[in-house]
Amino acid sequence: MPAQSSPPRTDSRPGGRSARVRAAVHQAVKELLTDEAGDALTIPVIAARAGVHATTVYRRWGSVGELLADVATSRFSGDVVVPDTGSLREDLERYAYDLAKDLSDPDTLALVRAIVGTGGEGAGVCRMERQRQLEAIIEREQGRGNQVPTIERAIEALLAPLYYRAVFTDQALSPEWARTLVSHLLPR
Amino acid sequence: MPAQSSPPRTDSRPGGRSARVRAAVHQAVKELLTDEAGDALTIPVIAARAGVHATTVYRRWGSVGELLADVATSRFSGDVVVPDTGSLREDLERYAYDLAKDLSDPDTLALVRAIVGTGGEGAGVCRMERQRQLEAIIEREQGRGNQVPTIERAIEALLAPLYYRAVFTDQALSPEWARTLVSHLLPR
Repeated sequence: MPAQSSPPRTDSRPGGRSARVRAAVHQAVKELLTDEAGDALTIPVIAARAGVHATTVYRRWGSVGELLADVATSRFSGDVVVPDTGSLREDLERYAYDLAKDLSDPDTLALVRAIVGTGGEGAGVCRMERQRQLEAIIEREQGRGNQVPTIERAIEALLAPLYYRAVFTDQALSPEWARTLVSHLLPR
Repeated sequence: MPAQSSPPRTDSRPGGRSARVRAAVHQAVKELLTDEAGDALTIPVIAARAGVHATTVYRRWGSVGELLADVATSRFSGDVVVPDTGSLREDLERYAYDLAKDLSDPDTLALVRAIVGTGGEGAGVCRMERQRQLEAIIEREQGRGNQVPTIERAIEALLAPLYYRAVFTDQALSPEWARTLVSHLLPR
């Protein structure tokens, strides 16, 4: 049978509509998170902003917590290059600087706060990507045969103060401050 | 004019009704925070649970963020005794232990998470009381003429990892772990 001459449907690619719904819903979440109005982030509100049916959102994500985890997965995956300067101290300084900069972005911070607020699995998504990068830096140094702090210690000394300051205080995450965190983890 | 013989109105004491509304609304917030259903915490939902008009809640607190800050003020004020063992290390160990225990309480953790989620002033309320206690411990040691870490350093080394682990991870805040935080702040 010859190909139909009807114009291609925009939905014809598998996942096409699905991908558009996902993009619209993710965008709606990002907009609502930075809205000054501060409306509660609920599935009906998100669906209305995205221009899709609430049932579509419920069916696909189940809850606001799962939806935020999905947004966080897109946001926090793959866009950060693990520093590789050849020096553990410099790698960690660059890492802390990058994370400080990232958490200083109001959009990122709003997403992190909302995820914590839902108390769901999203909080793990936020930090796991960052934790894996830290592990990669430390393991590389270990592979060079050098003494390294444990990953748990590095989390306490770097990740924890950066997230704490971002989420619980109004203080700036300055590059100088981020650097002092490294100097406490690795005293000279 | 002689005193009326009508029975005393329960509203007669200044603040009586107001105090009851506050108690009912605070209780509603606490219940909703630990509800498995995980409904969005909105003023209409809170008001319905408390059995008061939503307008009453709006008029008194303005927003969910301000209401949570008020709940946090009640929750985090005054119920913690600042340790005073005569030794900075022991004071800090007891302090870290108390905070770890407090943040392990699901009700407290749910409140802290919700406050972070609203991104409002409540996050300051959560930590300020704890920060003041830490300041009191350190200043007392300084008053004894001893060397002390800066308060900023103590926040990074104790408060930050405790809050980070509670809010971002599923790991237990064990007493042993809380003690190691102190040992990193005050190496022997």
